Amino acid sequence: MRHAVDELAWLSGDTRALLGTWLDPDAPPTPSALHAPRGRLRGRVPVHDDEATRSLTGLGLALWRQTGGRGPWESPEGQGALRELEASLGLLGAEAARGALGLLPPLAPRAHKSTASSGSALREFLDRDRREVRDRALEALLAPALRIPLGLPTHEYRARVLEALRYLSEQGLGSLGYPRAFGGADDPAAAVAVFETLAFGDLSVVVKFGVQFGLFGGSVLQLGTARHHKAYLGSIARLELPGCYAMSETGHGSNVRDVETTATYDAITDQLVVHTPHDGAAKNYIGNAAEHGLLAAVFARLIVADEDHGVHAVLVPIRDAQRRVQPGVRIEACGLKTGLNGVDNGRIWFDRVRVPRTNLLDRFAAIGENGRYHSDIPNPGRRFFRMLRTLVIGRVSVASASVSAAKVGLTIAIRYAHRRRQFGPEGAIEVPILDYPVLQRELMPRLATTVGLQLAVRTLQARLMDPAESDSAELEVAAAGLKAYASESCVTTLQASREACGGQGYLADSRFASLKADTDAFTTFEGANLVLYQLVAKGLLTRFREEMGDLTLRGAVRYLAERAETALTELNPVVTRRTDEEHLLDADFHHAALAYREARLLRSAALRIRARLDEGMDSFQAVVECQDHLIYLAKAHVEHRILREFDGPIARAPTPGLSELLRTTSALHALSCIERDRGWFLESGYLEPGKARAIRGQVGRLCAELRDQAHVLVDGFGIPDELLPEIARRESFDSGL
Amino acid sequence: MRHAVDELAWLSGDTRALLGTWLDPDAPPTPSALHAPRGRLRGRVPVHDDEATRSLTGLGLALWRQTGGRGPWESPEGQGALRELEASLGLLGAEAARGALGLLPPLAPRAHKSTASSGSALREFLDRDRREVRDRALEALLAPALRIPLGLPTHEYRARVLEALRYLSEQGLGSLGYPRAFGGADDPAAAVAVFETLAFGDLSVVVKFGVQFGLFGGSVLQLGTARHHKAYLGSIARLELPGCYAMSETGHGSNVRDVETTATYDAITDQLVVHTPHDGAAKNYIGNAAEHGLLAAVFARLIVADEDHGVHAVLVPIRDAQRRVQPGVRIEACGLKTGLNGVDNGRIWFDRVRVPRTNLLDRFAAIGENGRYHSDIPNPGRRFFRMLRTLVIGRVSVASASVSAAKVGLTIAIRYAHRRRQFGPEGAIEVPILDYPVLQRELMPRLATTVGLQLAVRTLQARLMDPAESDSAELEVAAAGLKAYASESCVTTLQASREACGGQGYLADSRFASLKADTDAFTTFEGANLVLYQLVAKGLLTRFREEMGDLTLRGAVRYLAERAETALTELNPVVTRRTDEEHLLDADFHHAALAYREARLLRSAALRIRARLDEGMDSFQAVVECQDHLIYLAKAHVEHRILREFDGPIARAPTPGLSELLRTTSALHALSCIERDRGWFLESGYLEPGKARAIRGQVGRLCAELRDQAHVLVDGFGIPDELLPEIARRESFDSGL
Repeated sequence: MRHAVDELAWLSGDTRALLGTWLDPDAPPTPSALHAPRGRLRGRVPVHDDEATRSLTGLGLALWRQTGGRGPWESPEGQGALRELEASLGLLGAEAARGALGLLPPLAPRAHKSTASSGSALREFLDRDRREVRDRALEALLAPALRIPLGLPTHEYRARVLEALRYLSEQGLGSLGYPRAFGGADDPAAAVAVFETLAFGDLSVVVKFGVQFGLFGGSVLQLGTARHHKAYLGSIARLELPGCYAMSETGHGSNVRDVETTATYDAITDQLVVHTPHDGAAKNYIGNAAEHGLLAAVFARLIVADEDHGVHAVLVPIRDAQRRVQPGVRIEACGLKTGLNGVDNGRIWFDRVRVPRTNLLDRFAAIGENGRYHSDIPNPGRRFFRMLRTLVIGRVSVASASVSAAKVGLTIAIRYAHRRRQFGPEGAIEVPILDYPVLQRELMPRLATTVGLQLAVRTLQARLMDPAESDSAELEVAAAGLKAYASESCVTTLQASREACGGQGYLADSRFASLKADTDAFTTFEGANLVLYQLVAKGLLTRFREEMGDLTLRGAVRYLAERAETALTELNPVVTRRTDEEHLLDADFHHAALAYREARLLRSAALRIRARLDEGMDSFQAVVECQDHLIYLAKAHVEHRILREFDGPIARAPTPGLSELLRTTSALHALSCIERDRGWFLESGYLEPGKARAIRGQVGRLCAELRDQAHVLVDGFGIPDELLPEIARRESFDSGL
Repeated sequence: MRHAVDELAWLSGDTRALLGTWLDPDAPPTPSALHAPRGRLRGRVPVHDDEATRSLTGLGLALWRQTGGRGPWESPEGQGALRELEASLGLLGAEAARGALGLLPPLAPRAHKSTASSGSALREFLDRDRREVRDRALEALLAPALRIPLGLPTHEYRARVLEALRYLSEQGLGSLGYPRAFGGADDPAAAVAVFETLAFGDLSVVVKFGVQFGLFGGSVLQLGTARHHKAYLGSIARLELPGCYAMSETGHGSNVRDVETTATYDAITDQLVVHTPHDGAAKNYIGNAAEHGLLAAVFARLIVADEDHGVHAVLVPIRDAQRRVQPGVRIEACGLKTGLNGVDNGRIWFDRVRVPRTNLLDRFAAIGENGRYHSDIPNPGRRFFRMLRTLVIGRVSVASASVSAAKVGLTIAIRYAHRRRQFGPEGAIEVPILDYPVLQRELMPRLATTVGLQLAVRTLQARLMDPAESDSAELEVAAAGLKAYASESCVTTLQASREACGGQGYLADSRFASLKADTDAFTTFEGANLVLYQLVAKGLLTRFREEMGDLTLRGAVRYLAERAETALTELNPVVTRRTDEEHLLDADFHHAALAYREARLLRSAALRIRARLDEGMDSFQAVVECQDHLIYLAKAHVEHRILREFDGPIARAPTPGLSELLRTTSALHALSCIERDRGWFLESGYLEPGKARAIRGQVGRLCAELRDQAHVLVDGFGIPDELLPEIARRESFDSGL
């Protein structure tokens, strides 16, 4: 520490000397020596200054502003660096700041406990955004067209799903994201909200809905220009033109940048020649391909005058109006799948299929009438990134559907386990199985995280509306991370929920059979989860490098952080040893812990990769060697993101009861993340064993607490009884009370 | 420590004084002071004494025998107490004993690395037990009768499954466990071996096979007497008499002791009246009930002269030869299930159905001609336990089938991931995805644990043959634990394997759809896993209490253990800090760590429950409050058990190459268990953070090492190509090399 202080050239000699005396472990500063500055401090900072009470950095900046505020801390970068330093030191910023100011902590969840809440009030609050379209989607789910029986033969099932889509299109629910001129509402967030709501029902309908209106229609909208919109969007919205989003290839599942299908410009005929160069380049797993699709947005390498300009999208007719496959096109059905058999996935091969030049979706790059390629985005990587926008919306949609499916599973399991009685004390009535701590531990943390995921996907849905985000790499990172985490969480949540229902959960009527089989695909499509997590980690590393450039100020802060980190955190008894309930339930502790983990994993990942590059290793290999570290980092990032999503709703909840319920939920999400990863926290010295044990105890207590409120949360999900199996309907649930 | 030594009254004054001087931390014994006894010791113990080099207890006993061997250590109980003390102290017994004797450690896996092994040699070795019937079962799997296509409508599927059973019965594979007089081989282990092998194929066939020949036929065999055997076993074996094992009820899934169906003896007509008293007491989920079953072994409370004698089994005809349901019997099909739709599960209600008194399966309890109830087993709990024998065999069978299904999944995933290439360095050929560390971490530890589970279920199969085990509570504990752990492990292994295959794994052709859907039931039937884990924990606690009675000797040892434990383990740098590869890969370290965890969790669970009982809490509530602790203990016990299963095969493997491969596999099982649970090990002070990190590194290295040998292990599973999807056939795998 002393060495680190010496390195900070900008400290005055006096300050340095004072710090030096304070750092002598054999002669710590006396209470009165510390009292004097604390007194000065308390008098000067307004306690309602939100920033000052939220972190030590905020407190420091507030003081610095009062003294005139000049110098390095003026810039947002400088302040950002300080915040990062604070996070990486693992100090409980808010706690320490409040302590310095003599303020009381915000009340811990346990403090007000009894206020009852209702599920309908919760739903009012959580579903307030796009409530009207959500209700319309719920209503549509109950229409006969969408009540598809279980166990239909594949062909019949697909016909029913197509019929369901037609109904949804008639209700105007397919085109909400399109411009008003084409029957839409110009509201992509509403489109995702509908997608999310429909995911309470048959997931084949949802996926085919997403393929048609989201991926296919979305690529015409996002990648095409006025002429394409005019020619196609109306008939896409009316389902007169079913179509495909033909991106994935057999040989390159999640590696979309390397697709091998070609679209070669033939200047003589002014046409594009779309071709599958070899079997591995066939488009694979394409929804709408096996039966219904007429037109496909085909992602292919665009070759103009022998130059490969990278991947672009071209519209290629694959069937005529009578559904006869076009010449030069070969289509094969994918066959029976684990789930989603209402969707007609297929493989497509193109044998030099010619389409007009104008079929190129040319918003970001075009071939002029002169036959020349031009683009306003000169960087091919950046251009490709813009073209993947539809995929980003797709990922937000898959995350949303994963959350909905998990909510259905949890609703069924929690209501069932509340009614189902098994075993009990000698001679007494059997006990509802939800009273067993071990079942609470299976269900309650997943319930808490699912609520957090719901908040997180809603935030992302709203960001899709923000024009400032249209080119946002951060949005891509957020969408990738939430898609991976939500789909993974959905799979494990449904498994736990199914097992909680025992044999009842194994009957197809209970819905778990299709829920599990259908959502299993979510871990793979729109990008395999392990690939997406790496994308998240790379995004974080890029930002980290940008922020951690070579500015002298940052260099100093970074140096200090690296040197002091271990010593400080291990020595700071506030962080590592406090086991009292007030501290363990304090949201500041939760935020600090998850922020610390993310920051530290990010820095160590950067250092490990840097070390390998410095040794001359190629960057691919360097990343591969740190792969599990990167995935760990990505998950830590998402868990932290989910936690942050609770803050706004807790602050804005309309009643103290709801606010308290969300706070308990947030605390359980955070503490169960910390508990699950306590190995890392113990290794890094952030927790002492006693504190880790105390956290385990708190998780158990929060599980029991949330068990009593679980019915409010699942009521708040707002899933209509008609969509639930008998064992989980509200009436029967209520009568079981 | 000093205090503990003082308490050991049997130490001589001199010894006590000497120990006292050694225990002074400021004046530790000099090397030469320690050298003298070590020299004496080394001269006296024969280094080929296996026991003496395996633990400090063994070493002590060897010395004690040389000095005449009298006193408290003579009894097996005394020696057991010492061993337990050693385990709970967390000392690395073998390492320390070898150190004391100046012996070198056994070679770590890394030491001989290159020896190649072949899958066929591995299979020769692993499948040597009951090889002939295993081969017959494999051959049967390839017969047309068992090649059931995917996606059949339910009724057709069930007919095909029945046909498959008929074929298996014709091959004599159904009755291997029955006496020779009824066409069998009197070899229950062979019956389970066949069941295990058949589980490479369609799992509906396997489950229906188990219902007919195992549960139904087994209950006639185990619970009936000569007259039942003669009347039924032959026709059961020939599938002329399909039947049901009607135990579970709607209201009491896994709580079989509390079934409510009654069988009331009517002395006037000399009949039993079988009755379903209310809707919740209907028999539920009964295999063979919905379509094919003619006779059912019904578990009901036997009431004779108004006295309830608890649960007994009665044979009740449910259909006549034309499959018409009998009067008084009502049967309802369970309907479509998540999986296993080739099995016709149903619900059965009995409305005062009368059967002759002699239909009672009366091996353990009978109603005499005089109308009186009598049993040679007066204790009702013990009697019921004997009657559940069929269920114990059933659990061993489910564990075996779980292992087989996991092996199929791993074979597909590993072969696919070895061939599938995705991403790669700039401009170079893409990399096989199995080369990615993150995929290795998903698959290799599961592969290692699956191999260990295979060894463990084989041991259990053999124990089923041992007459001495017919009443063994330990066998019940082992069967329950392995059933729960293997089925849970199967579910997660199949999920990871499916995801490793990406979209390919989602196609039904890849087999994952049915593998996942079918095995999902394994977590619930024959006892829900959470219930079985508690049964394991209770079994361990019972044994612990029996062993830890109030014998003075044991009291002393126990006292010492409790007092010294924490201090010793935390102070013992051998255990907590060594991070060198030789130590981390040493099997002794693995055994010590898993033994320590189990012993400590067991003792703390006992103390926690005891404390609650002492406070006057009722025992049900006391157990409920410690439920997650108990489940943790049960899993720790099973993981330790699996590890121990490797020892014999490593020692007996026919070639050094195989022995080495098994040692690597064993090390990865152990270290990945420790890594996954490093939070606990760090909390308990058994590991220091640096060692935990070193273990993580070793797991990564072992994953990479096993990746290179993975094809040998999966070849060793011996799954015929015909049962695998194209992406996983051996030929294509080899050509991909």
